[in-house]
Amino acid sequence: MNRIQSLFGIRWPIVQAGMIWCSGWELASAVSNAGGLGVIGAGSMYPEVLRDQILKCQAATDRPFAVNVPLIYPAIEEHMQTIIERGVPIVFTSAGSPAKWTPLLQAKGIRVVHVVSSVKFALKAEAAGVVAIVAEGFEAGGHNGREETTTMCLVPAVADAVKIPVLAAGGIHDGRTTLAAFALGAEGVQIGSRFVATPEYFSHRAFKGRIVDAAEGETLLRLKDLTPVRLLDNPFSQQVAAAEEAGAGVDALRDLLGRGRAKKGMFEGDLTEGELEIGQVSGQIKFIQPAATIVEDLVAAYQGFTAGMEDPHFRW
Amino acid sequence: MNRIQSLFGIRWPIVQAGMIWCSGWELASAVSNAGGLGVIGAGSMYPEVLRDQILKCQAATDRPFAVNVPLIYPAIEEHMQTIIERGVPIVFTSAGSPAKWTPLLQAKGIRVVHVVSSVKFALKAEAAGVVAIVAEGFEAGGHNGREETTTMCLVPAVADAVKIPVLAAGGIHDGRTTLAAFALGAEGVQIGSRFVATPEYFSHRAFKGRIVDAAEGETLLRLKDLTPVRLLDNPFSQQVAAAEEAGAGVDALRDLLGRGRAKKGMFEGDLTEGELEIGQVSGQIKFIQPAATIVEDLVAAYQGFTAGMEDPHFRW
Repeated sequence: MNRIQSLFGIRWPIVQAGMIWCSGWELASAVSNAGGLGVIGAGSMYPEVLRDQILKCQAATDRPFAVNVPLIYPAIEEHMQTIIERGVPIVFTSAGSPAKWTPLLQAKGIRVVHVVSSVKFALKAEAAGVVAIVAEGFEAGGHNGREETTTMCLVPAVADAVKIPVLAAGGIHDGRTTLAAFALGAEGVQIGSRFVATPEYFSHRAFKGRIVDAAEGETLLRLKDLTPVRLLDNPFSQQVAAAEEAGAGVDALRDLLGRGRAKKGMFEGDLTEGELEIGQVSGQIKFIQPAATIVEDLVAAYQGFTAGMEDPHFRW
Repeated sequence: MNRIQSLFGIRWPIVQAGMIWCSGWELASAVSNAGGLGVIGAGSMYPEVLRDQILKCQAATDRPFAVNVPLIYPAIEEHMQTIIERGVPIVFTSAGSPAKWTPLLQAKGIRVVHVVSSVKFALKAEAAGVVAIVAEGFEAGGHNGREETTTMCLVPAVADAVKIPVLAAGGIHDGRTTLAAFALGAEGVQIGSRFVATPEYFSHRAFKGRIVDAAEGETLLRLKDLTPVRLLDNPFSQQVAAAEEAGAGVDALRDLLGRGRAKKGMFEGDLTEGELEIGQVSGQIKFIQPAATIVEDLVAAYQGFTAGMEDPHFRW
């Protein structure tokens, strides 16, 4: 049992990313029931929706699960109040400074994990008292760091810099990529894209189908002048690229983005006008599979590799 | 002994990248003498310089070494003639189609390896008959693929797609990153940036010093509208960024780049006006060390990991 397993009280050090539109209770409870850590993505939920999702998740599993809260969320006090009231044991924070909320939550017995894209922010999060760090590389879907540091470069750098355990994110989806993450110094993995291609993920089935069809090179980082975000290629993403190529300013990009683009794409399944946030690894995801199968297959493959590393592939 | 060791006739499946300005005979022979594969980077050499470098390398080592030839090199016939005449056993090609030169070289008993940044080009190279592929991720220094696929995503995808062995490149510099590359399916690694920070590398010492001082996030992909290239931050790179931000076209960027920028930066040590090509991993390189020490330390660390994988880090 490693530090991530102990900290979270889970069988396998595998975390399902709390993605907007949407990681809901079905996915989170399925992953937790399979021995990983399921995470509800609160960033796209109204406070009453989050409350309902937590209640349903608690009814569906006796095991630990977490909620991911972007720290820029406007009604963050209500979210945190719900989390404290409902006794959610673990909170993942992202997109902001963990200095304010970490002590408040941890005083209530809630363990806080912060998601970072650089060593600089990892050190700040450690100083704020979080119990673990998610080091998320450039290849990850959705919002992304300006340094563009990849998982291969970021994870060893963060693992060297902090004393608390590190989870690797970005490009991880199976046993071999999990072994790579552990080789780089991670003590756990956070997996996003692969868990979107599940029956339990409550995004639109058109979005899931698009992920399974995605080819290599079909995701690119866009909107770098606003907040960098990795998007799957579609007419909306091409519009953004054309505007950026023409030298559009921040206001023009914000107008083009408008409101509700992510909901339209991922939740309503509008593959033309919607924003489709997904990782580079989508090019390798070819099936929709139950979350429990993903966890079981990953663990079996990982343990196959590490059972004495007898595989001659590793011997030279 | 794995396929890369057999194909190249080397003790360790570790290849030193054939970088411009400059991987010369001192570095290549030092790496080959340490049991890896040294590579002379011919892309920045006049034909007579390459001939001289090969002669010196042959005098300095009895072991196999290779020459890297970018296929866009203007005097490529002269380079290939020298390579054939001098009996260089292995050629790495990049930046172009391997369809023309691979059969000609291999008919002379020279093994050809091609460097790619996507599955599509890996399949083309395999069809052209190359004996191995270097899959080079977004984090690598110098010229780079338009898909921006990282090592973590690219290596498993290429390893799944081709039957010939794959070397991983991009972000690899030590035992743990080498183990990660093998976990992803590679049978060898190609290391660039780390071998620049050696006494044997004949670039300017100001450039080596700049690499040792480089911080996380200091390299970014520039000149995407011409040929994407990963550069270390400096006034020249900032000028490029400003021009790109202002919507500069291909001609304006080409004028700004001018001629001899890479030589000026890496060979002449002009850290202000020169082009400084290096990988993301430069942020983690803190010492100038002899090439043989790098190889020995890497092998020892890797074998420590794989000696039965007894390290409890891997057990969960």
